[in-house]
Amino acid sequence: MSPAERSDSADGASTPTGTGAGTGTGAEPLTTAQIAEHAGVSVATVSKVVNGRSDVAAGTRALVEEIIRRHGYRRQKRAARPAAVLELVFRQVRDAYAIEIINGVQLVAREHRLAVVLSELQGRHTPSYGWVEDVLYRRPTGVIEVFSGLTDTQSGQLRSRGIPFVLVDPGGEPAHASPSVGASNWNGGLSATRHLLQLGHRRIAVITGPERALASRARVDGYRTAMDTAGVPVDPDLVRVGDFRAEEGHARARELLRLPDPPTAVFVCNDAQALGVYRAAAEAGLRIPEDLSVVGFDDLPAARWTVPPLTTVRQPLTEMAATAATMVVTMAQGQPLAQNRVELATELVIRDSTAPPRTAP
Amino acid sequence: MSPAERSDSADGASTPTGTGAGTGTGAEPLTTAQIAEHAGVSVATVSKVVNGRSDVAAGTRALVEEIIRRHGYRRQKRAARPAAVLELVFRQVRDAYAIEIINGVQLVAREHRLAVVLSELQGRHTPSYGWVEDVLYRRPTGVIEVFSGLTDTQSGQLRSRGIPFVLVDPGGEPAHASPSVGASNWNGGLSATRHLLQLGHRRIAVITGPERALASRARVDGYRTAMDTAGVPVDPDLVRVGDFRAEEGHARARELLRLPDPPTAVFVCNDAQALGVYRAAAEAGLRIPEDLSVVGFDDLPAARWTVPPLTTVRQPLTEMAATAATMVVTMAQGQPLAQNRVELATELVIRDSTAPPRTAP
Repeated sequence: MSPAERSDSADGASTPTGTGAGTGTGAEPLTTAQIAEHAGVSVATVSKVVNGRSDVAAGTRALVEEIIRRHGYRRQKRAARPAAVLELVFRQVRDAYAIEIINGVQLVAREHRLAVVLSELQGRHTPSYGWVEDVLYRRPTGVIEVFSGLTDTQSGQLRSRGIPFVLVDPGGEPAHASPSVGASNWNGGLSATRHLLQLGHRRIAVITGPERALASRARVDGYRTAMDTAGVPVDPDLVRVGDFRAEEGHARARELLRLPDPPTAVFVCNDAQALGVYRAAAEAGLRIPEDLSVVGFDDLPAARWTVPPLTTVRQPLTEMAATAATMVVTMAQGQPLAQNRVELATELVIRDSTAPPRTAP
Repeated sequence: MSPAERSDSADGASTPTGTGAGTGTGAEPLTTAQIAEHAGVSVATVSKVVNGRSDVAAGTRALVEEIIRRHGYRRQKRAARPAAVLELVFRQVRDAYAIEIINGVQLVAREHRLAVVLSELQGRHTPSYGWVEDVLYRRPTGVIEVFSGLTDTQSGQLRSRGIPFVLVDPGGEPAHASPSVGASNWNGGLSATRHLLQLGHRRIAVITGPERALASRARVDGYRTAMDTAGVPVDPDLVRVGDFRAEEGHARARELLRLPDPPTAVFVCNDAQALGVYRAAAEAGLRIPEDLSVVGFDDLPAARWTVPPLTTVRQPLTEMAATAATMVVTMAQGQPLAQNRVELATELVIRDSTAPPRTAP
């Protein structure tokens, strides 16, 4: 945002942007001055609403928002932006997963000289009103969302200002037509399970992610299809619902290993939970891979440093984030996207945590 | 930065800020208009230099910088800043260490409704000119530096604009009088080594961080003092220089375990390298802690999930980052700091990777 751009909200000089303008009607989107006239308020007030300022009465804000929604808004001409901003928003910044995403976004941000504003929703699935207000105020080049996604209202607020956004690996419903980047989760679950089947395992357990996470569901469906096409029935006792945390992997693995007919192999839907499985195995006096084979998912850097190193499905998180950032920049430049949904390939990385079962069936 | 503040650089209305203004002389710092008069350039040009814009001739920039350095600069009155920025700069965003720092800064940023701009120097020890230019342009509330520190020129540029900065755990020389936050590294090294001595170990090795990292040197000095006060001579063969990466921990531990008289315990100066020691032990057919005791440093979340869980020295990274952010906000408000250098306590966390040596001497 240049000084000029920030300050000239009172003049009518503007130019339509390629994205987000003109929703719902075929007519030309309105300038700030035209919106002010429609609403019967001052240009300064419209400017405040557009920029997400809080010092506007609720009724006035709603009126201006409604006009913007109906007619669209012509963003003012952009001056040179030596320090424009890319917003990167996490539901939670928790482990190396976030590091990979941050590094991918930074790659693209540096190339385009964009500052990365990092925020997190502290575990919430959608941002609060305050978050949106702040984002509108910063007028970012775009937003990269590493969470379930904005509400319809919030999406509309960004769209009407021409602020593009892309979801990375959305955990929830992909209901929205919003652009997104994911990984081929289903294929990953299929390869992981086929690898175990090929080693001779039949009692193959799965520890899933949370049930609302579609990425995890896709991995489990890949597992089911691999089992089914190999003619091996899935024992419901061997399917355990986790939540992506190591503690949960530990608890679910303890249950599995205490079954009368325990599994000889476990496909774990993320690496963190696999760490928990390692502990449960050690506590039960079982060696990996001699007594229990384990396959993870993610291939975070730590997977190379477990003892033994973890066989896992690599999810290219850095590339996914870089792709999302590139999509945002493309949209901000008013260019069309080649694809609205991009899926990057997963890849099975075989290390030392998988081996044939001690007694092949 | 409010729209008003960005745009009114042409008027003379200003107010002195509590920090950074007026370096070197007892006189009142100058307003933008006064600097322009001194330099014989336009107010717009001075404003561009102050805001880090690039479209100013080098000679003119140098002249203006020199006047600011000599007389100081009176920052303009701040309007309400609903989306002001805190800069968080890493030398490298690599592992869970960065996650802890980010979370600590976010805690304070949320409280003060500050946006966190994250950048990294891609492994460089001091930022490039472009980085400073961008930071000046964003006019942040303050800067948190997780690297060796700015050059004197760069520090001067921030100071003259009244932008406070604080170093977190600086790895290099603490030459600067800049405010900083660290951990009691020496005490940590002392406690780790005393714990091993108390268990009965005498052949205690140490794997250090890089030699230029003062934090690591302090840990090693704590090790030496613990050994010395226990009357146990330090065998130079048992002191190995690492670089904080797991690969290096692995390589150095292999060397140690192949010695004619190998150590029975290793104090490793960070958790990542301890993971490498775990692998080397497994490769040598040694069990932890029965055959080899290991103590790490950091207590990153992964330390709880190694097999066995790692005894380590907890460094309160989240609290350190939150403290640094609070110091920055305090300075930005023109308040004095209680202390220029804050050291937070480290704490030995005893888990399952340490035990008495198999054969006490």
